[in-house]
Amino acid sequence: MTKADAGDSIRPLRATDVHTWDLQADVVIAGFGVAGATASIEAARAGADVLVLERAGGWGGAAALAGGFIYLGGGTALQKACGFDDTAENMRAFLVAALGPGADEEKIADYCDGSVDHYNWLVEAGVPFKPTFWGEPGYEPPFDDGLMYSGGENAAPFNEIATPAPRGHVPQMSNKRSGEQGGGYMLMKPLAETAAALGVRSEYDIRAQRLVIDDDGRVVGLVATRYGTQVAVRAHRGVVLATGSFAYNDDMMARFAPRLLGRPAASVEEHDGRAIRMAQALGADLAHMDATEVAFFCDPHLFYRGILVNERGQRFVPEDTYSGRVGQLGLLHNDGQVLLIIDEQAYEEGMAGTTATPDLKHQPTWVCETVAELEAEIGLPEGALTTTVDLYNRHAAEGKDPLLHKKSEWVRPIGSPVAGIDLRGLMGGFTLGGLRTDLQSRVLHVDGSAIDGLFAAGRCTSGLSAWGYASGISLGDGSFYGRRAGASAARS
Amino acid sequence: MTKADAGDSIRPLRATDVHTWDLQADVVIAGFGVAGATASIEAARAGADVLVLERAGGWGGAAALAGGFIYLGGGTALQKACGFDDTAENMRAFLVAALGPGADEEKIADYCDGSVDHYNWLVEAGVPFKPTFWGEPGYEPPFDDGLMYSGGENAAPFNEIATPAPRGHVPQMSNKRSGEQGGGYMLMKPLAETAAALGVRSEYDIRAQRLVIDDDGRVVGLVATRYGTQVAVRAHRGVVLATGSFAYNDDMMARFAPRLLGRPAASVEEHDGRAIRMAQALGADLAHMDATEVAFFCDPHLFYRGILVNERGQRFVPEDTYSGRVGQLGLLHNDGQVLLIIDEQAYEEGMAGTTATPDLKHQPTWVCETVAELEAEIGLPEGALTTTVDLYNRHAAEGKDPLLHKKSEWVRPIGSPVAGIDLRGLMGGFTLGGLRTDLQSRVLHVDGSAIDGLFAAGRCTSGLSAWGYASGISLGDGSFYGRRAGASAARS
Repeated sequence: MTKADAGDSIRPLRATDVHTWDLQADVVIAGFGVAGATASIEAARAGADVLVLERAGGWGGAAALAGGFIYLGGGTALQKACGFDDTAENMRAFLVAALGPGADEEKIADYCDGSVDHYNWLVEAGVPFKPTFWGEPGYEPPFDDGLMYSGGENAAPFNEIATPAPRGHVPQMSNKRSGEQGGGYMLMKPLAETAAALGVRSEYDIRAQRLVIDDDGRVVGLVATRYGTQVAVRAHRGVVLATGSFAYNDDMMARFAPRLLGRPAASVEEHDGRAIRMAQALGADLAHMDATEVAFFCDPHLFYRGILVNERGQRFVPEDTYSGRVGQLGLLHNDGQVLLIIDEQAYEEGMAGTTATPDLKHQPTWVCETVAELEAEIGLPEGALTTTVDLYNRHAAEGKDPLLHKKSEWVRPIGSPVAGIDLRGLMGGFTLGGLRTDLQSRVLHVDGSAIDGLFAAGRCTSGLSAWGYASGISLGDGSFYGRRAGASAARS
Repeated sequence: MTKADAGDSIRPLRATDVHTWDLQADVVIAGFGVAGATASIEAARAGADVLVLERAGGWGGAAALAGGFIYLGGGTALQKACGFDDTAENMRAFLVAALGPGADEEKIADYCDGSVDHYNWLVEAGVPFKPTFWGEPGYEPPFDDGLMYSGGENAAPFNEIATPAPRGHVPQMSNKRSGEQGGGYMLMKPLAETAAALGVRSEYDIRAQRLVIDDDGRVVGLVATRYGTQVAVRAHRGVVLATGSFAYNDDMMARFAPRLLGRPAASVEEHDGRAIRMAQALGADLAHMDATEVAFFCDPHLFYRGILVNERGQRFVPEDTYSGRVGQLGLLHNDGQVLLIIDEQAYEEGMAGTTATPDLKHQPTWVCETVAELEAEIGLPEGALTTTVDLYNRHAAEGKDPLLHKKSEWVRPIGSPVAGIDLRGLMGGFTLGGLRTDLQSRVLHVDGSAIDGLFAAGRCTSGLSAWGYASGISLGDGSFYGRRAGASAARS
């Protein structure tokens, strides 16, 4: 097609205005990340002819660059092999508490009920998981272990709400330290190969621009651009949107998630929110547009061993929890003002024990003999840090932390010399809000009905999370509801 | 009209499907609160035949029930009469800091530049302001004074960012203590009378249900319901949406502002978000859907004189700031866990000096001889409150508060006996996010263009605020952009 007015608009185009369909398939999927890949597999297995359009030069999306956590539980074979008991109900209790307030409880229950099956599905699709557990503090397993805590399940307050179980399932990496094959790549590679083996077709360097609707408002295709040329793509059964977050759309960030504006991380530049806006132009509804993951870029081996304080010298999080929770509380509730206070011995132990990458091994910003000197050096209000450390030390002498309930194994009085590490600015992330979808991954209109012919999954949708997060939720709900989207579109 | 499929849908109806127009006007306004009233006046003055539809039994909306603050500045006649200097630039600097992060700086600059003119316009429309200043702590002037601080302008950190000036302009109340005529009523009454004198027509007990568009997508009217009957209303020039917030729509609250779910306040049950959804169905864009005002229902005379602490016994806000800021930080960043710690002498002084209504004069929940006893009584972690009070008292002895910079006039060591007042749950409010509009109050499509024939103002739109708030912002931007909406619609 070359119709002039197709232009750059994101408004839906009428099918009657399309003169030629350049590409056709039963199911057309925009985006070849984890949601698009899983959607393509299920659509193909349901008998559909499937075409995936990807604006980058190859499959992968943000997923292929990710550490690779997939949040799964309820008693997966991997959990059992590592000696952990879990149930769907226990997993549900944790997620409702950790991903809220406001988390989609219906979606969480659905996800937990299907989690064991989803794990098996991934294994059958060729995703490798080594049945070993990594129990040290860190962001992800440094070697090829398959299971790790990834959401603060074993830290306060969640360890009192549900029985702790690790649920971060990581695809086995053959050569992690080379940096070439992270867990996300080892997830995406077998999925892309599975899709190809099923006859899924793919086109690259092509980006979805607007949806095409028939006279009844049903989505029957989309218009994409490739090298400046408009390409009309007919979808005989359905369109699946799977193009990722809006972390790189500064205008949307300013309007919906301003605290993360200018701090995109764990996302790719293609995450411009266009799919969200294309669907909004059809009346699609949204959810949790302010919700963001916030990564905290400091080695857990260090911050578990010290105390994290805000600009008033106050502790605000149990330091032995999920680093993303530190990031969220630090950036969203404490204006990004986060300092680590740690004594020399703890720092040395942390550095000795760490398996973190060098960029996370922060050097002390300030070092002093006493906390009072450190407080003055940092420029904190007089007495603010000393009272915090005094209180912490008083209880730490008994191995306790009644203020925030850090586990006793990480509680030890802070001695001398003592350092402050400036962690301001070391927070960034991606967006969790987006299109409102139902359990069948149908995109919902603001009137509550499903928009005919339109499906979505991954971070262009609002998934399990509202305010909170756990590592692996995005690859988790992206792949879970990606499958649903593909299956729904194929039978649409 | 009685076409069956008009039903309860919020999807736009095609004009060709309307058989009979039951009502007609040049400009049709949905909602007769402050935004609708001001829109009606400007539309009528621009020569349009104007019809206002209100679902309640009379004009007023949430505005008529409000305290009546209108946030104005930049050197209004009222500010000058009370001896305060202010400039548009100074006002702008405060608002950008106080209403963010993420506040709409373009809208704020526009609002500040037009603020003096807007004050004069209100006076000319008959809104009375008594040129006296009320300088005591409180929510609103207890008598008929016209000016008061309403956003923490004279408290940290804003008193270092801009020169403090009070900007809460309150219409003079003839009989405030009767409870029948609050400032909001004294704002709405002259506006409604002005509108009536201009020939503005109004219909009550009728609620807007969906928009009507022509073949080009232009909004040419709306469908309303009255006593179960569909009413088709033709707008020859434009439709103005002015139906208020979504604080009473639990589904939207759960998806966008879950921390305020179940806590609506300073809003009316009619605030169901329907206008937002009607416009979304046309592809209208949104902004700051998570933003909420949060009122804090405790007498400032009490909390200025004590310290406010969270569940960890930590202070988090200068107690002498705007109570709404205490509410936002308390509910949104501290999970609503707010306690007031105040000694007997300060409590008695506060009670003696207060002009607050009885419902705000909270009795002590716990009373003890020492802070340590109080801490144990409340159940706070051992040492948490005592260290906070020790630190506060140490500096207070010198009249200082280096931690949060409460002004020295309110800083005094906390003595014995000492009380704790449980303020958990005493926070509630309304939503600040909504339709994205431009400076002419045109509703913007997600493609950035204006939707032909559709205008909006008030709390169904995103106005000046993102995260922060000041009392008077809603009546302020609602009336300011209400006027713009009316003028724009009349010339559309």
